[in-house]
Amino acid sequence: MAAPMGEQRGSGTIDALLVSHLPNVRYLCGFTGSNGLLLLTASTATLFTDGRYREQAAQEVTATGAARVVIPARGDLWKAAAARLRPSARVGIEGDHVTLAQRQRFLQHWAGTAARLRNVAGWIEAQRAVKDPTEVAAIRRAVELASSVFLPTVAQLRPGMPETEAAGRLEFALRQAGGEGLAFDTIVAAGPRSALVHGSPSHAPLPQRGFVVMDYGVILGGYVSDMTRTVHAGRPDARARAVYATVREAQAAAVAAVRPGAACAAVDRAARKIITKAGWGRQFPHSTGHGVGLEIHEAPRLGATARETLVAGEVITIEPGVYIPGWGGVRIEDVVLVTERGAEVLTPSPKELLSF
Amino acid sequence: MAAPMGEQRGSGTIDALLVSHLPNVRYLCGFTGSNGLLLLTASTATLFTDGRYREQAAQEVTATGAARVVIPARGDLWKAAAARLRPSARVGIEGDHVTLAQRQRFLQHWAGTAARLRNVAGWIEAQRAVKDPTEVAAIRRAVELASSVFLPTVAQLRPGMPETEAAGRLEFALRQAGGEGLAFDTIVAAGPRSALVHGSPSHAPLPQRGFVVMDYGVILGGYVSDMTRTVHAGRPDARARAVYATVREAQAAAVAAVRPGAACAAVDRAARKIITKAGWGRQFPHSTGHGVGLEIHEAPRLGATARETLVAGEVITIEPGVYIPGWGGVRIEDVVLVTERGAEVLTPSPKELLSF
Repeated sequence: MAAPMGEQRGSGTIDALLVSHLPNVRYLCGFTGSNGLLLLTASTATLFTDGRYREQAAQEVTATGAARVVIPARGDLWKAAAARLRPSARVGIEGDHVTLAQRQRFLQHWAGTAARLRNVAGWIEAQRAVKDPTEVAAIRRAVELASSVFLPTVAQLRPGMPETEAAGRLEFALRQAGGEGLAFDTIVAAGPRSALVHGSPSHAPLPQRGFVVMDYGVILGGYVSDMTRTVHAGRPDARARAVYATVREAQAAAVAAVRPGAACAAVDRAARKIITKAGWGRQFPHSTGHGVGLEIHEAPRLGATARETLVAGEVITIEPGVYIPGWGGVRIEDVVLVTERGAEVLTPSPKELLSF
Repeated sequence: MAAPMGEQRGSGTIDALLVSHLPNVRYLCGFTGSNGLLLLTASTATLFTDGRYREQAAQEVTATGAARVVIPARGDLWKAAAARLRPSARVGIEGDHVTLAQRQRFLQHWAGTAARLRNVAGWIEAQRAVKDPTEVAAIRRAVELASSVFLPTVAQLRPGMPETEAAGRLEFALRQAGGEGLAFDTIVAAGPRSALVHGSPSHAPLPQRGFVVMDYGVILGGYVSDMTRTVHAGRPDARARAVYATVREAQAAAVAAVRPGAACAAVDRAARKIITKAGWGRQFPHSTGHGVGLEIHEAPRLGATARETLVAGEVITIEPGVYIPGWGGVRIEDVVLVTERGAEVLTPSPKELLSF
């Protein structure tokens, strides 16, 4: 998926890179386990992991030639990496992921000093933000799988069904369609609970009348999907229709603002302007979107204070919402590919207000 | 669930505690969101979070009186906490969770200096290891829910069914029984893939003949379950029966070694001895168990190098396994409560070798 260390080596500022953030480890060497540390130098790539992953690392990493695999005694990955580094090396570490304890353990066993550590936060994330065609294809497949179960699941919803069961039906459909896992904890939040931006499914029943927010994602080939649709139990009243129409219009406006070179903040503004004009600006308390890929939240972030501009090949969500405490909420979310000419919406599911 | 700061305040070594590890935040103030920072002093408790969680934090934290909730502008939680701390304060931080970037952001905005930071790694985790009766009851409910779907799911397994669908049936049953979420990514690994200790469900079909490892957990009331059973497609041959019997005997021996005051390493040894004697010592590449609670892996750890001893009220897994590359693997896992008199196995599911 990625050639190790291209730009970094060229820059000449570090001699070695310690990659500890697992999605970055996976991106660089293919290892999917839950414990790993990747040491890259100009001429070597070494993955440290523990005995649980001996067989898996052999298949995923040794067999592909991506890295050597080392399973240190007692499972101390940082110590093992330290033992392989010259004291004079300038060592890059991921400051936004490395904990104080990991840094300390490394320094304890390394003959070098803290002054030679370099914070390379965001280096690999920046590479990951722009997807190559293989990655886009993987995300597209995940998004299409997730979309394919949306309408069949809505057809199964009934007032009185617990939110947990509704979530279960969604998740089972994802599995039956071949989903390798859930991209994040499924959100199903109904009635007044739909005003919770991140409402975990509870035992509360779906109401006779009110919104049901469904926000879910699947993993396929390691890449994630992310979509939200809001449906309505019973006949929506005028206020429900107005809130829904506003969010839908805001979502479309943000999608229309997506193009290479557009400021992420401008995409956020496009959605926020419409919601604010309708009088619900204070009820839209999150950013408009985020990158997706190996992780559910990755670069870029599409918020009011974001400084990045969009680049062709980035894959992002567009997901404005309005949440009215005690009443309910609406969010509509698609995955969007930034193309040379603008945006391609990857999520095929309809965005009309559906009732059940 | 817990009185904030009892021991810590008494020790007199810190004036404030910054809790950033989310399960610890939840334990201390009840907040279940995905972004939060809890600042505790002798007389105040303040939760910092972002706008997505305004409504949820009001319900979970403000309403219970557990803490004040502050939603800082631009969502910079560490900056907001720094602004509330005197420069002379001795501030405890969780060194095994705080990243280098978080520490740096805090120090940028705090009038105090790094020399006044104290690493309190493991303080709250140590409190959490021993469960109170309410917590034990919550874990028991989660474990019983998970166990209740095991046999009905095995009854649905057929050779040829993809691992992903088998996982989906398990997960759907958990949801139908009221599960609030999955405790971790479900493991279903069949045939030779059962030799992968952490095999994610793939599109591979369940074999005509061979082991199927099922390792799964559910969340209920915030607390998790964790269980593994290994079943067999078709008639097990002599080697399969021998491996299974060995793992089962090792699991029983480790359970029998559980009591207050027992060394965690001795519990591990009890299982390992039996597997080693049977000739598969090198095919048991992980520790025998771990604590469960709000997190799927918490203190104590039951491995060969563990130094802790067990305490009544701890809730742990006992889960030895044997994994033979290219052939298959077996793991059997129960959740066990350390009682005054020994151990109570909370997982009621049978441990005979079942075939389908």
